[in-house]
Amino acid sequence: MINTQVLLARRPQGKPVAEDFRVVENEVRPIREGEALMENQFISLDAGFRNWMDEGAGDDVLPAMALEEPVMGLVAGKVLESNRDDMRVGEVLVGRLFWETYSIAGPGDLLTPIQEKYKLSANLFLGVMGDTGLSAYFGLIRVGNLKPGETLLVSAAGGAVGNAAGQIGKALGAGRVVGFAGSDDKCRWLENEVGYDATINYKAGDVDAAIARACPDGVDVYFDNVGGDLLEPVLNHINYQARIPFCGAVADYTATEGSGPSNLFRLVADCGRLEGFMTHYWMDDYEAARDVLAGWLSDGSLKNYEARYQGVEKCGQAFEDLFEGGNFGKAIVEV
Amino acid sequence: MINTQVLLARRPQGKPVAEDFRVVENEVRPIREGEALMENQFISLDAGFRNWMDEGAGDDVLPAMALEEPVMGLVAGKVLESNRDDMRVGEVLVGRLFWETYSIAGPGDLLTPIQEKYKLSANLFLGVMGDTGLSAYFGLIRVGNLKPGETLLVSAAGGAVGNAAGQIGKALGAGRVVGFAGSDDKCRWLENEVGYDATINYKAGDVDAAIARACPDGVDVYFDNVGGDLLEPVLNHINYQARIPFCGAVADYTATEGSGPSNLFRLVADCGRLEGFMTHYWMDDYEAARDVLAGWLSDGSLKNYEARYQGVEKCGQAFEDLFEGGNFGKAIVEV
Repeated sequence: MINTQVLLARRPQGKPVAEDFRVVENEVRPIREGEALMENQFISLDAGFRNWMDEGAGDDVLPAMALEEPVMGLVAGKVLESNRDDMRVGEVLVGRLFWETYSIAGPGDLLTPIQEKYKLSANLFLGVMGDTGLSAYFGLIRVGNLKPGETLLVSAAGGAVGNAAGQIGKALGAGRVVGFAGSDDKCRWLENEVGYDATINYKAGDVDAAIARACPDGVDVYFDNVGGDLLEPVLNHINYQARIPFCGAVADYTATEGSGPSNLFRLVADCGRLEGFMTHYWMDDYEAARDVLAGWLSDGSLKNYEARYQGVEKCGQAFEDLFEGGNFGKAIVEV
Repeated sequence: MINTQVLLARRPQGKPVAEDFRVVENEVRPIREGEALMENQFISLDAGFRNWMDEGAGDDVLPAMALEEPVMGLVAGKVLESNRDDMRVGEVLVGRLFWETYSIAGPGDLLTPIQEKYKLSANLFLGVMGDTGLSAYFGLIRVGNLKPGETLLVSAAGGAVGNAAGQIGKALGAGRVVGFAGSDDKCRWLENEVGYDATINYKAGDVDAAIARACPDGVDVYFDNVGGDLLEPVLNHINYQARIPFCGAVADYTATEGSGPSNLFRLVADCGRLEGFMTHYWMDDYEAARDVLAGWLSDGSLKNYEARYQGVEKCGQAFEDLFEGGNFGKAIVEV
C-alpha cells in the first residue's frame, strides 16, 4: 500500500513556503503491537504548527519536528487496522498525525473519536466543531465575556478562527461585529456571506481612522487571533473594561524582529484586559460547547466555511497560503 | 495672608524638570459662598499628574492644567474657614488641590476626611493608607490574585506603590518577592530595609538573566507600575496563568516615541493576563482595605516609607526627582 507523504525538507525562514516541503511515496509498513493504521481523510492546516518547525523549537507540549520526516498536523481519519484496544476498525478519529495518506498511530498518540451523535462530516471536527470553533467559542465567552449589544472586533476575520468568531459573536448577541481582513475581496465576502456588520482592510489606508468609523461606539471585545501590529491602533479605541482575548499569534510565529504596541498604557486608562488562552484549558466543557455549536449549525446561524484543497500533496502550498492570508475560512486538505 | 504657590511655567517636554515650574507669592483672597479655605499640610507627588500637563491633555476626568496657574496635585490639609456645609473648620481632608500653602476648595471640589479612627498622621493618607497603598493592595488581590507561596515581581520597587506592593505581597504570603530598581543603593535599601527577598538593578547587566536568577521558580505575578521596556524580559519568565496587574505607566507618560514588548505572544503560550486597573474602581471597599492596611501598620508588617521634602517651593524639584527615580519611597512635600 503506497503512502504519499509530505516531508519537512528544510526549516522555514520566517513565513513558510511550499518549497520547504517535499512529497515522497513510501510503502506502508505493517503495524505492530499497540499500533493502529489510519486512513487519513482530512488534514487541517493550523498556523500554530509553524512553532514546531524551527530548530530546537521543542517545548513542554511537543518536540521540534524532524527534517526529512512527515510534517505533523491535525488530521481526521478512519481506522483501517488496529492493535489498540481503544481504537476499533471503521471508527473516525481526530488527532495529531502527519501530512500523509496513511498514518500509524502509536501507543502514545491521543486520538479522539468524532461524536457520531451530531451526524456531521469529519471535516467539521477540524473546523467549527473542532479546535477552531472551540477557540472562538471559549475565547469570546470565557475570556472575552462578550455581552449582548457590545461591539466585537475580530482580527484575521476571514481566517478559520476569525470567521467562526464573527458568527459566534452574532449568535451571542453582539450589537456590532467588525472584522479586519487583508483584501477587499475578503472584506466583501465577510460582509455579504459571513455576516460581519463592517470590515476593515488593514492594508488600505489609515487603520486608526477606519476603526473609528467602523466602531462608532468603541470596541468592547477585541478577539485577537494574530497578534502583531493591529493591537496598537485598536488600543486607541477600546472602551472602559474592554477585553482582549489573545488566541495564537501568527504574526509572532514568523517574526524575526519587530516590536509590540507602544500604547499598552491604554489598558490602564481604560481598565482593559489582554489575556492569552489555550482552548484545551476548557477540555471538560468541550461536549457542552459542541452541543451549542451543533445547534447553531443546524439552525443556520453558524456555517463551516472552508478553503478546501484536493490531495495530500497540496499540504505545502496550503500551508504557504495560510500565512499569506489568502484563504477564505478554514484551510482543509482533502486527502 | 501670603500664599506661596508653584505655577506651571511651561509645559514639560518628556520628563518634567524643576525649571518647568515657578514659585510666586500672592495674597489669599477671601472665600465666597460654597467655598472653604484649606491650609495645606502635605503635598503628594504622583507621576500620574504629568498626564494633565500637556497642551490639550484634558480627558474625561480632568481638563489639562493651565499655564501660569498653580499645579494640581493630591493634598492633605486642614480647613481654616468654611462656607461649605460638608467641611467643618479644623477637619483634615485629602483631595485634589494645588501646589501652594493655602488652597480654596470650590463647591465642586471633592475632598475626603481622613479617618480619625486610625489615629494616623495625615501624610499616611497620601501614602500607604491612600491611593498609593490602595493601588498596591487592590492590584495584588483583585487583579493579581496573588496566592501564598507564589513569586511576585514588582517594577519601580523603590517607588511609592512599589515598596508598598513588596511589603503587602509579603504580608499576603508570597513565597518570594523580587523588585526592579534603578540603582544599587536602592536595591540594597529594598533588601535590607523594606524586606524584598531579591532585587534587580535593571540598569546594570543582562536583565533577562537577572530575572532567571532572582526568580528561579518563574514569575507568577508581575506588578507593573511603570510600563515600558521591562515587560519584555519579564514575559520570558512568566509562569502558566501568570497575572500582570498594570498600574499606571510612568514610562508612557514621558514617552515621545517608543515601542512595546515584541513577545506578547508569551501571554498565549502561558495563558497569561495583562490587566490595567484604576484603584477608584473599588472605592466601595476602601474602608475594608484601610482596616487591613492599618492592622499591618500597627503590627509592623507594613511601613510608610517617604522621601520627604520641606517647603512647598520644593514641589518642582521633587516632581523632577520622581521621574529620575531617585526617591526611596513615597515623595511627599511637607508644606
